[in-house]
Amino acid sequence: MLDETRGARCQRCKPYMEQENLDAVVAISPENVLYFAETYIQTQTSIRDRLAIAVMPLASDPAMIACKIEEPTVEAETWIKDRRYYVEAQRSPIALLAEVLQEKHLEGKRIGMELNYLTADYYCELNRLLPQIELVPCSRIFDQVRAVKEMREIKILSRAGLRTVRAIEAAVSMTSVGDSENDLAVRMIKNMFDGGAQSLEFMCLGSGLRSEMAHCSPDPSVALEDGSVIHLDFGGKFDHYTSDISRGILIGRRNPKHEDIYKRLTDCYVNGIEQLKPGVRACDIYHFTKAQFEKAGIPFTMSLVGHGLGIGVHELPMLIPSEPKALETDMMLCYEIRTIVDGHRYHIEDLIHITEQGCEVLSQPELDTSMLWIQPDLL
Amino acid sequence: MLDETRGARCQRCKPYMEQENLDAVVAISPENVLYFAETYIQTQTSIRDRLAIAVMPLASDPAMIACKIEEPTVEAETWIKDRRYYVEAQRSPIALLAEVLQEKHLEGKRIGMELNYLTADYYCELNRLLPQIELVPCSRIFDQVRAVKEMREIKILSRAGLRTVRAIEAAVSMTSVGDSENDLAVRMIKNMFDGGAQSLEFMCLGSGLRSEMAHCSPDPSVALEDGSVIHLDFGGKFDHYTSDISRGILIGRRNPKHEDIYKRLTDCYVNGIEQLKPGVRACDIYHFTKAQFEKAGIPFTMSLVGHGLGIGVHELPMLIPSEPKALETDMMLCYEIRTIVDGHRYHIEDLIHITEQGCEVLSQPELDTSMLWIQPDLL
Repeated sequence: MLDETRGARCQRCKPYMEQENLDAVVAISPENVLYFAETYIQTQTSIRDRLAIAVMPLASDPAMIACKIEEPTVEAETWIKDRRYYVEAQRSPIALLAEVLQEKHLEGKRIGMELNYLTADYYCELNRLLPQIELVPCSRIFDQVRAVKEMREIKILSRAGLRTVRAIEAAVSMTSVGDSENDLAVRMIKNMFDGGAQSLEFMCLGSGLRSEMAHCSPDPSVALEDGSVIHLDFGGKFDHYTSDISRGILIGRRNPKHEDIYKRLTDCYVNGIEQLKPGVRACDIYHFTKAQFEKAGIPFTMSLVGHGLGIGVHELPMLIPSEPKALETDMMLCYEIRTIVDGHRYHIEDLIHITEQGCEVLSQPELDTSMLWIQPDLL
Repeated sequence: MLDETRGARCQRCKPYMEQENLDAVVAISPENVLYFAETYIQTQTSIRDRLAIAVMPLASDPAMIACKIEEPTVEAETWIKDRRYYVEAQRSPIALLAEVLQEKHLEGKRIGMELNYLTADYYCELNRLLPQIELVPCSRIFDQVRAVKEMREIKILSRAGLRTVRAIEAAVSMTSVGDSENDLAVRMIKNMFDGGAQSLEFMCLGSGLRSEMAHCSPDPSVALEDGSVIHLDFGGKFDHYTSDISRGILIGRRNPKHEDIYKRLTDCYVNGIEQLKPGVRACDIYHFTKAQFEKAGIPFTMSLVGHGLGIGVHELPMLIPSEPKALETDMMLCYEIRTIVDGHRYHIEDLIHITEQGCEVLSQPELDTSMLWIQPDLL
C-alpha cells in the first residue's frame, strides 16, 4: 500500500523527474491539481481560463497559484505552504507562474508541463515571458504516479462503482415499458445523488436504433419500446472519483436475438477478466479480447477495451494495442467491451481492482452476465 | 431576431473573418463545436484528447472532424456535409485536420484557431505538420457571434433559469434546521433533474463560516445551524444551455445582522439592474456597481459583476473594468454581486435578458430581494 502522507504524491514524481532530467514539474489540469495539491477548485472545469497551478520543483519547496476568488478554499485545503493568488481579468496567471519560476531560479531550466492541458495561448505567453525556459511534456509522469491507487482511493472508487450499479438497477426495477428514455435516466440520476454522488460525469442512454450512438443523450420524447434494448454508459463523481458502468437492458418481452448477442459478448467478457492480473501487458489484453470476439462471431470495432479509472475517466492503464506496459497490483480499471449488430449497441463495463493474485470485479462481486430487464407489466 | 437557418451561425463569422483577414476559422471547444456544427459530443469534456473540430473556411464549404466512436451521433446531428473520422490511439486528430486544411489549400494561410482551448502539444503538432500555416486566436470572433442570442436560445435559457430557481425554492421549503448541507443540495439537484436538466454544471453550497468559500462543496457532515446563513451558487444544463443562480438563505431564527447586509446588497442589485440596457458599456456597469457598494457601506472585492450566459458559463458580455463594449438587445447575462462580511458570503445572481427597452429579470419576474428562508419547525 502506498504512503498516504500529504506531499508523498509529490515525492513519488521525483524518480521520474531525475530520470527525465527535469528541474520541476507543473500540475495544471483539474485532475492533477486535485491529486497533488489536494485542493478541489470547482470552477477549474467550467471556467477554463481561471487557472490553478501547482509548481513542484525537484530541489525546493512546492508553490500553489490560484485565482483570488478561490483563496478561502485553497487556504483550507492544500498542504502546500507557499500560496499565491492572482486577480482575474487584472493579472494573468501565467505572469504569476513566471514570477514563481524566476524566484525559484527555474527560468532557464527544463520544466515538465502538462502540454496536453496547457492551452496554446498560455504556452506562448510563458515562452515569451521566460524565453530561456525549456517546456517538455510531463503528463505521462503524473499518469504513472496516479495509476497505482492508494487504499483510500480504492475504497472511494469501489463505493462509487457499487453505488452506480445500484442506482442503475433500482431505476430499472421502477421503470415500465412505454416510459421515456428520460424517465429512466432521471431515476438513475436521482438514485446516484441519494447514493452520495456529488456530480454526474456522463449519462449516455439510447434505446432501439438510437443505441448505436456511443454517447447518446436520453430523450424525453422517445418511449421505451417493448422487445427492444437499451444501451447505457453512466457515471458520476463520488468524493472527486469517477464511476463508469455499462449495462445492456432488455425492454419488456424477451427477445432471443438480443439475448444471444449479449450472451456472446459476456462470454468474451468473462474470459477477458480472467486475463487481468499483474504482469500482463495492456496490449496483450486488447489482442486477447479481439481474438475472443472472432471466436464468438461478433463484430469487433473497439480502439480500446478498457482504461484506468480514478479522478479522471481515462487514466493509465489504457488497454490499447500500442501500450506495452504491464498491469500492476492496485491499479483500478474499467474493462469494457461492446459490439454493434444490426444498428444496436451492446456494451458491458465494470470496475476492476488488480490484486496480487489476479483481480476483483468490484462493481459486481457476483458476476451476472444476463441483461438487466424492464419486465412487462402484469395484466 | 437572428436568422436560425442551419449554417447561418457559420455565416455570421464571415464579416469578422474578412475584417481580420482570416482564410478560415476552426472551432474546437465543446461550446463552439456544439454551436457551429450543431452536434453534441458528450465525451469532448471528460476525454479531452478526443478532439472534435469544425473547419469553417471563408470561401469554401465547412468540414467536420470527430472520433470514429462518435460517428453515429455526428451523422445524425450535424448539418455539415463533409465529415471525417479518426480512430483513437491510431491516428491523431491533428493529422486529419492538417489533411483537411491541405485539401482546402489552407496550409499556408492565416487561420483563426481557439488558442485558448487548443492544447500546446496539438498546437506544436499542427505547426510541425504545416510549417507555413499562420495560427491566430479567433475565440473573440466566436464569442461575439454567440453573445447575441437567437429566440430559441433565449427560450431555453429562460426556462433553465426559472426551473433552477424553482428547484432551489422547493428544496428550501422541504428543509429543516439541523439537516445537513448535503441534504439540501441533494434536494435541489433532484428537483433540477425533475425540472428537465440534463446535467449539473456546479453546486456550490456552504453554510456559516464555510460560506466564505466561493465554490464550497456541500458537506454531509455539516448541519444547517439555527440563526446562520447559506451561500448558494447553483447551475445545470438544460438542452445544452447553462443556468446560474445565487441566493442567500437564512436558517431558522431570523438574524437581523444577516438580513441587514443582504438588504444593503440587494439594494445595490436593484439599482444595478436598472442600468442594464442596450448601449451601456460593460465597464460602466462594473464601476456603477462598485460605487453602489461604497454608498451601501459593504465591502467590494469583485473582479466581475456579471457575465454573459449561454452554452458556456462565462460568455460575452463580461462585466469587468477592462471591457468597453456596450450591451446589445438579446444579450443574455447574469448580473451577480456578492460581499463578504465577518467571514460570511452574501450573494445574489439572476438571469437577465437585454431588451430593446432595457432588461427583464427572467429568473425572477417579480423581483424579491429578501433572503430565502428555512423556517424553524413549529413546536
